[in-house]
Amino acid sequence: MSKNDQNHNSSELSDIKKFWEERGHLNELVLQKGGLGIKRFFNLDHQVYQEGALPVKTKELLGLVASLVLRCDDCVYYHLVRCHEEGVSDQELEESLSIGLIVGGSITIPHLRRAFKAWEDLKVDEV
Amino acid sequence: MSKNDQNHNSSELSDIKKFWEERGHLNELVLQKGGLGIKRFFNLDHQVYQEGALPVKTKELLGLVASLVLRCDDCVYYHLVRCHEEGVSDQELEESLSIGLIVGGSITIPHLRRAFKAWEDLKVDEV
Amino acid sequence: MSKNDQNHNSSELSDIKKFWEERGHLNELVLQKGGLGIKRFFNLDHQVYQEGALPVKTKELLGLVASLVLRCDDCVYYHLVRCHEEGVSDQELEESLSIGLIVGGSITIPHLRRAFKAWEDLKVDEV
Amino acid sequence: MSKNDQNHNSSELSDIKKFWEERGHLNELVLQKGGLGIKRFFNLDHQVYQEGALPVKTKELLGLVASLVLRCDDCVYYHLVRCHEEGVSDQELEESLSIGLIVGGSITIPHLRRAFKAWEDLKVDEV
Amino acid sequence: MSKNDQNHNSSELSDIKKFWEERGHLNELVLQKGGLGIKRFFNLDHQVYQEGALPVKTKELLGLVASLVLRCDDCVYYHLVRCHEEGVSDQELEESLSIGLIVGGSITIPHLRRAFKAWEDLKVDEV
Amino acid sequence: MSKNDQNHNSSELSDIKKFWEERGHLNELVLQKGGLGIKRFFNLDHQVYQEGALPVKTKELLGLVASLVLRCDDCVYYHLVRCHEEGVSDQELEESLSIGLIVGGSITIPHLRRAFKAWEDLKVDEV
Repeated sequence: MSKNDQNHNSSELSDIKKFWEERGHLNELVLQKGGLGIKRFFNLDHQVYQEGALPVKTKELLGLVASLVLRCDDCVYYHLVRCHEEGVSDQELEESLSIGLIVGGSITIPHLRRAFKAWEDLKVDEV
Repeated sequence: MSKNDQNHNSSELSDIKKFWEERGHLNELVLQKGGLGIKRFFNLDHQVYQEGALPVKTKELLGLVASLVLRCDDCVYYHLVRCHEEGVSDQELEESLSIGLIVGGSITIPHLRRAFKAWEDLKVDEV
Repeated sequence: MSKNDQNHNSSELSDIKKFWEERGHLNELVLQKGGLGIKRFFNLDHQVYQEGALPVKTKELLGLVASLVLRCDDCVYYHLVRCHEEGVSDQELEESLSIGLIVGGSITIPHLRRAFKAWEDLKVDEV
Repeated sequence: MSKNDQNHNSSELSDIKKFWEERGHLNELVLQKGGLGIKRFFNLDHQVYQEGALPVKTKELLGLVASLVLRCDDCVYYHLVRCHEEGVSDQELEESLSIGLIVGGSITIPHLRRAFKAWEDLKVDEV
Repeated sequence: MSKNDQNHNSSELSDIKKFWEERGHLNELVLQKGGLGIKRFFNLDHQVYQEGALPVKTKELLGLVASLVLRCDDCVYYHLVRCHEEGVSDQELEESLSIGLIVGGSITIPHLRRAFKAWEDLKVDEV
Repeated sequence: MSKNDQNHNSSELSDIKKFWEERGHLNELVLQKGGLGIKRFFNLDHQVYQEGALPVKTKELLGLVASLVLRCDDCVYYHLVRCHEEGVSDQELEESLSIGLIVGGSITIPHLRRAFKAWEDLKVDEV
């Protein structure tokens, strides 16, 4: 990674920003090419994170930890963006990621590293 | 293990009670045979669920959903016992399991079934 | 439990029959306790295996191989019952399981063993 | 890999083309450095997808869905190339990916996105 | 666990002995029903654990730790039997399982428990 | 891939070197932002690979194969660097990777390819 990226162009975007851009483009494609089953699944995937007996913030942390133990960077990035929007604090994030690390073991460490990096990137420059 | 289960013999124990009994016996064996690394890990595994910026209840739900998406019945059972002790409501449980189902897909359904069963069993007869 | 299996007692049921019984009971519980999200997911899970550009038989084989590589006995059992109902031949089954074995590796062998056993059990005595 | 893609430079190759190129180079290395066990495995991996009781197309779809639920982009890309060669239709592909999504859950969505993108790329410019 | 299993009958066999018996019966079935691909895979699966640059004992420990992190009890049991036959010491076993635990996380603990139990059972009564 | 990259700049670093650099930077961030639980886990993760009844080399091979079957490129890269430092021979490496391939199946092949490539890269230019 370049040592001084004061004025980054597209190729110097943080990983989480690159993910967010790609996600936008490709979700359009999926919803255009996908049938009713896929559309309904995407809908359901939206609904289960809505306010209920549990607050949205808790639900996003559930999605985050599930994504970490399943070791999916893009899914971790998505829930980090949402956690950031919901006002999750640094310490709440750290505690959640710690649980993911203990449950999932050292195999999650590469994703843990990128999660902490993305969390810092989100503070500097929202997606 | 409940002190008075006169109406059951060993073969009629619910799955979650059988798990809890076996867990007790075998954890003793692991801590007797395991070295410093294993003991320290068990310690850490205890610590990350302690009260912090996030309440214990939320942390147990994080452990529960992580266990469901990783499809480990015993781990789900353990966190169900802890959620029960922490006063998680039926609806909070249902919302958490729903997130696990959507993240993890239909492959989690057998574990979801056993989780709902174990939750009902816990209401009748605590471990 | 089937009302008249005079020749068996409970402990002699094949694993696939025990699964099928348990599945029936517990699905009722899940649909009774589960909210809208879970019900909608179960619905979707039913719809994606319906006749389309691909025949039902092919879709059940897709579900079977996905279940084998993800190493879920209950999911394998379910799709074996459906494959049996759809008239999958022994050779079609063997070829599908072989692909699952090569994709998923030796870690799938315990599930492969139980899949072949369950397939024979289904021939003797339908669920 | 097409021999003359004058209009692209290396950084503009689609992900599936980049995969196909890398796969070619690295497979040579693996077969050069790998022993008899690895060579035999590669052979077996080729054989199980040959015509049998099931047609090649069905077998490639089995490999595709197994790859999606195990969340391996490169494996998905490989089977997409083969599905394209075998004349799989858009609708057959969509139905197969839908089954993978339902079985594997939202954690497969990033791979689903890239699969749809790669399928479109294959139509424009074969590997 | 029964307090006095001095004279156990079949239903009182240790889990690892039950596994070993079932494995024997079902492997016969798999090799009878399976085609050339499955037979060749089983062969390969045997060959990679043979003496080479690495001793058999090391290879069995590799198989054991791989099985633990992939959380397959039957595969763990198989490699424990082989490790026992190859004269793996208690401490070598403990160190290997510790690595598996750290790599795979707390989700492996139920399998770790059963592995320690099975190792003790193997000392009392070989399969 | 270019046959002669005698004087590479940053963008031409091998994947394993890019990983090693990123790992260094991000581990600093994790240890700075992470709490006591994460620090203790990192410590434990270091300790279990120390000399014991098993030599360090064997322990690194255990970590390598566990990483391969769990399909984590970064984890594979890390253990390849350590195996290289511990003087693992080409044949010892090949035999270990073969076991990982058989246990984990064809889904590990993309990681196997990159592992062989990285091993060659390490010979030319240590991290």
